[in-house]
Amino acid sequence: MTVRAAVAGASGYAGGEVLRLLLGHPEVEIGALTGHSNAGQRLGALQPHLAPLADRELQATSAEVLAGHDVVFLALPHGQSAAVAEELGPDVLVVDCGADFRLSDATDWESFYGSDHAGTWPYGLPELPGGRTALQGTRRIAVPGCYPTAVSLALFPAYADRLAEPEAVIVAATGTSGAGKALKPHLLGSEVMGSMSPYGVGGGHRHTPEMIQNLSAVAGERISVSFTPTLAPMSRGILATCSARAKPGVDAAAVRAAYEKALADEPFVQLLPEGQWPSTAAVYGSNTAQIQVTLDAAAGRIIAISALDNLTKGTAGGAVQSMNIALGLPEGTGLPKVGVAP
Amino acid sequence: MTVRAAVAGASGYAGGEVLRLLLGHPEVEIGALTGHSNAGQRLGALQPHLAPLADRELQATSAEVLAGHDVVFLALPHGQSAAVAEELGPDVLVVDCGADFRLSDATDWESFYGSDHAGTWPYGLPELPGGRTALQGTRRIAVPGCYPTAVSLALFPAYADRLAEPEAVIVAATGTSGAGKALKPHLLGSEVMGSMSPYGVGGGHRHTPEMIQNLSAVAGERISVSFTPTLAPMSRGILATCSARAKPGVDAAAVRAAYEKALADEPFVQLLPEGQWPSTAAVYGSNTAQIQVTLDAAAGRIIAISALDNLTKGTAGGAVQSMNIALGLPEGTGLPKVGVAP
Amino acid sequence: MTVRAAVAGASGYAGGEVLRLLLGHPEVEIGALTGHSNAGQRLGALQPHLAPLADRELQATSAEVLAGHDVVFLALPHGQSAAVAEELGPDVLVVDCGADFRLSDATDWESFYGSDHAGTWPYGLPELPGGRTALQGTRRIAVPGCYPTAVSLALFPAYADRLAEPEAVIVAATGTSGAGKALKPHLLGSEVMGSMSPYGVGGGHRHTPEMIQNLSAVAGERISVSFTPTLAPMSRGILATCSARAKPGVDAAAVRAAYEKALADEPFVQLLPEGQWPSTAAVYGSNTAQIQVTLDAAAGRIIAISALDNLTKGTAGGAVQSMNIALGLPEGTGLPKVGVAP
Amino acid sequence: MTVRAAVAGASGYAGGEVLRLLLGHPEVEIGALTGHSNAGQRLGALQPHLAPLADRELQATSAEVLAGHDVVFLALPHGQSAAVAEELGPDVLVVDCGADFRLSDATDWESFYGSDHAGTWPYGLPELPGGRTALQGTRRIAVPGCYPTAVSLALFPAYADRLAEPEAVIVAATGTSGAGKALKPHLLGSEVMGSMSPYGVGGGHRHTPEMIQNLSAVAGERISVSFTPTLAPMSRGILATCSARAKPGVDAAAVRAAYEKALADEPFVQLLPEGQWPSTAAVYGSNTAQIQVTLDAAAGRIIAISALDNLTKGTAGGAVQSMNIALGLPEGTGLPKVGVAP
Repeated sequence: MTVRAAVAGASGYAGGEVLRLLLGHPEVEIGALTGHSNAGQRLGALQPHLAPLADRELQATSAEVLAGHDVVFLALPHGQSAAVAEELGPDVLVVDCGADFRLSDATDWESFYGSDHAGTWPYGLPELPGGRTALQGTRRIAVPGCYPTAVSLALFPAYADRLAEPEAVIVAATGTSGAGKALKPHLLGSEVMGSMSPYGVGGGHRHTPEMIQNLSAVAGERISVSFTPTLAPMSRGILATCSARAKPGVDAAAVRAAYEKALADEPFVQLLPEGQWPSTAAVYGSNTAQIQVTLDAAAGRIIAISALDNLTKGTAGGAVQSMNIALGLPEGTGLPKVGVAP
Repeated sequence: MTVRAAVAGASGYAGGEVLRLLLGHPEVEIGALTGHSNAGQRLGALQPHLAPLADRELQATSAEVLAGHDVVFLALPHGQSAAVAEELGPDVLVVDCGADFRLSDATDWESFYGSDHAGTWPYGLPELPGGRTALQGTRRIAVPGCYPTAVSLALFPAYADRLAEPEAVIVAATGTSGAGKALKPHLLGSEVMGSMSPYGVGGGHRHTPEMIQNLSAVAGERISVSFTPTLAPMSRGILATCSARAKPGVDAAAVRAAYEKALADEPFVQLLPEGQWPSTAAVYGSNTAQIQVTLDAAAGRIIAISALDNLTKGTAGGAVQSMNIALGLPEGTGLPKVGVAP
Repeated sequence: MTVRAAVAGASGYAGGEVLRLLLGHPEVEIGALTGHSNAGQRLGALQPHLAPLADRELQATSAEVLAGHDVVFLALPHGQSAAVAEELGPDVLVVDCGADFRLSDATDWESFYGSDHAGTWPYGLPELPGGRTALQGTRRIAVPGCYPTAVSLALFPAYADRLAEPEAVIVAATGTSGAGKALKPHLLGSEVMGSMSPYGVGGGHRHTPEMIQNLSAVAGERISVSFTPTLAPMSRGILATCSARAKPGVDAAAVRAAYEKALADEPFVQLLPEGQWPSTAAVYGSNTAQIQVTLDAAAGRIIAISALDNLTKGTAGGAVQSMNIALGLPEGTGLPKVGVAP
Repeated sequence: MTVRAAVAGASGYAGGEVLRLLLGHPEVEIGALTGHSNAGQRLGALQPHLAPLADRELQATSAEVLAGHDVVFLALPHGQSAAVAEELGPDVLVVDCGADFRLSDATDWESFYGSDHAGTWPYGLPELPGGRTALQGTRRIAVPGCYPTAVSLALFPAYADRLAEPEAVIVAATGTSGAGKALKPHLLGSEVMGSMSPYGVGGGHRHTPEMIQNLSAVAGERISVSFTPTLAPMSRGILATCSARAKPGVDAAAVRAAYEKALADEPFVQLLPEGQWPSTAAVYGSNTAQIQVTLDAAAGRIIAISALDNLTKGTAGGAVQSMNIALGLPEGTGLPKVGVAP
């Protein structure tokens, strides 16, 4: 089986990571690459790490250029995916790395994104209960946000087993690639190196309703989420520290058991042995999420921590993993489980 | 007035930072410098940034060497301060940068430090209610831990005004200098750069009871603290994200008013204008703590964030600030308010 | 004596560093602050580390706003200083942190900067032979480039004593602040962290003729310079590795003697003890340049290495040092000799 | 064909990188893993990024444990390889990542390493003239040093075509993993981050004679090398800036032609298009070396710059590439050409 894939938004970080993974995917042949302001440029000038594609030229994004492929990855700014997807027809597998089709609640969408809701596609987080079934055979995939991936993987086992109260508190650190290649002063290397800083504090980050959606579905009740993202001096990686008050009577053994039950067989989630904690370095460039959990008896809280690479498992790796499921390929095809460390 | 100061533990990061600040203090003359395994070495080989002291030689730490100074800074491993302090006599101002005399509860000490409780000294955080009074004229100062400084400054205004429920959730990121110069594999540059990782998760970090002590004293009730520290890829700085459920009826205006009342006149705390958030880069090398607070109405939580330099305001700067108060000097003498950025 | 100083270009990195140092200068009162696209904004939003100036507002750069000060620092893009300086009159001390008045050769200027040569002002590197004399009483100062400062300090002792052949090879690493706050993709944190990369290779960097000018003047013959700058993953600092073939008969003792003679009494140059090498960390935020030199007998080359902070000794610190000389103040007034480390 | 491979020194950085690559090698099955002080530990605790091997236990290094494999990788401290290799017999392919068998001149070895010369094995740099032939069918491979790989690839085309004078000047920056996992104070994250510093200045670095050996063999005359290594604030990567005076009459076209001729067909060397320069970020985790060259007409020097990942192409990737040749496998089997960026 050879799958012919196009990538729209190939000059950005998400698009570049999709290409890095597709270059190692034995069933994929890379077709059209498109960009916006960079159309006409050599990819080698924009993504110098993608050596085998250095001489490929970016085309302008259009349905014509993207047509004729089996899979089209969209790595476009929010709000641009719907128009492109519509023109591609129902038989093409469209994998949207943007946010447009993640939320099921139109009011949430409008409130956080300020535009009309485009709709809801099958959600590309296979590890969630029912996640794989929803993706089999689909021709539309909404790739989750990087933070919701990290947070959902860390907390869903606790909520699935009704171990935690419905108020989650999450503080996460992300590498700067999570903000994309936008030319903003606070993303300059001079500003970022040696600095930790929060942003989107107080409930305003757009990934918040997506976390609430995922956790509430698992818990069977509305979960409130207090989410504080912070920018860390590193290029890649998310470390999500998630906690919630333990329900009365919950003990450490029950917590451990819930996580083992939920995660033991997951190919891309590594529940660490007790006492070992995740680090973003260990999953750099890999599609693995590391998870650890404990019960703080004095504070009465379950503390679950996840580490993943925001560009790999958090975006492009999750996208390829979901593509594999949709196409009936072995789920792990072409996906690295091993991080690049140190 | 010329104050003659000695520094025990001058080869470590805390001792080095004390010296950096004392070199800029117009009323201090630097006397004996001591070390342990490094005795006999030139300071220039150990602390190459302290150019004016490059040719000074470290002596072995002993009461004899430290005697004859007006002030003695102790930057020693936990558990070693009491013996030295006892020999120095009651007229010498002893400023302990270690933990030995921070906690008032002997059980907490024994439970978290595993040794006998040495006692309790006046606590060097002038910004807390009653903090300055406790330091005036004292000859013994317990310098707070770096995390408790960051967390107490961020949360005490909320607890002082009874705005928050008594369960605080704190996730903090620290630069690696917070772990000292210990030769441990996880502190190697190769391991740290590009990586975020948690440690001491689940209630075990030794700074937890100190936070509980400070916040409970302000609140007039027992505050529980869930504290997760993380190691960030930077040398200096703490970013503490602190939150607690708001009490019923508390609104954003009440929160802002409490913080303005508590912090407006503090020389070394900068409550930022609304909408601007702290960063560790902005306080690099300075004795300033930046604070911002907001109310997340959807999640019902007060989110307060502080940034400070763990070695300056978090250790040596706090120590010098408290020394100034104890000696009757203007509180800000010799202390930088301006960070080194970018 | 109170000197009233204005800073044009106060929102950039050079202007911000001038302000950081002036805030610690006991004889200076800070007057007008100007910017270009940022006029009207609070300085606290642009330079959050300058806490005491947070509420100052930037004005638009103009001769009217800058008039009425004793000293005006210009931290403007290349080519804009001459017009401003002309309007300020001959009695105001104008300190130009830009390149406009550094070169004495109009052809060099035109060839490297592509515009008309504005002229030549006294050069703000007091450590060069005759450097201080040229600055005493002047009302115009051309602050050297950061690389030429690092390279000239490292190599002038060898050329002053005629120890080296007239072909210097220089490879230098700089922190990203050397490139300013310009919004360019290759300066994004995501691109810079974890990466070393060269730029301006092959003789094209604009600081090359300035190095040739300085070294040739000291040597009394034309020195050719091969200069390769590289961008390092750090915010601040220059490490310049400079070498030249030793003249016949030159031995290690002669090299050491030349450097001790030239540098021993310099307040802001630290010739390290033999065997200790410079690091940029040791001079972070300080006005000190560290130098070390050796003779590689097998390769027949003198290797001299300097480390300095590109924003301090390399720009704003050198500017203030030269201002002090011009105004007859003690040369070191307000200038830190101690780095912020670790 | 399934090759059974053992790795001695599996807990270090070189050994870990060998394992990372072997996990992606379709013809290799990973056998015994040995360590020294870490024997008995789970690999997951020491190399948390190697998720699929997390539960493997390290054995003590001995010939018994290493016997019975087709290939044995030695990632041991210098001086320990000979004794192990001798016991393994002539039919086992022994790939030594250490220095023991790199130098052909016993005097050089003794002078730089201070011990008896163990001998000389076929040298694992296939790109050098005759390099592949020397490796075909061999059962002993000396993996080059990381710096000599970077420098030899950058300069051999110039020397092969007799374009450069026999005095090379090299300044290289390395990530900290080049220094291994040794617990030394200057390798702590607090010391390394934000800092550039030189070491081994003046001709003393042990990789110097290896560079001289390689370049002299290509040039047909003795090449002198002035080599200055510097430590950069990043985990991985080498950027080597190499230059030599151009021979009379050499022009830019001749230089370009020499590099195209030498490198155009190399699978793991990417001669960049003119105007684009290497960066270590672009080759992070890949076996690719990026090269660019120019002629500085004013200074009369050829400037050649290479970037590679010191652990991949500089050590473990070069080792696997050479193994593939020795075993008759396609040279690129299992080796990534694509970097992990940003």
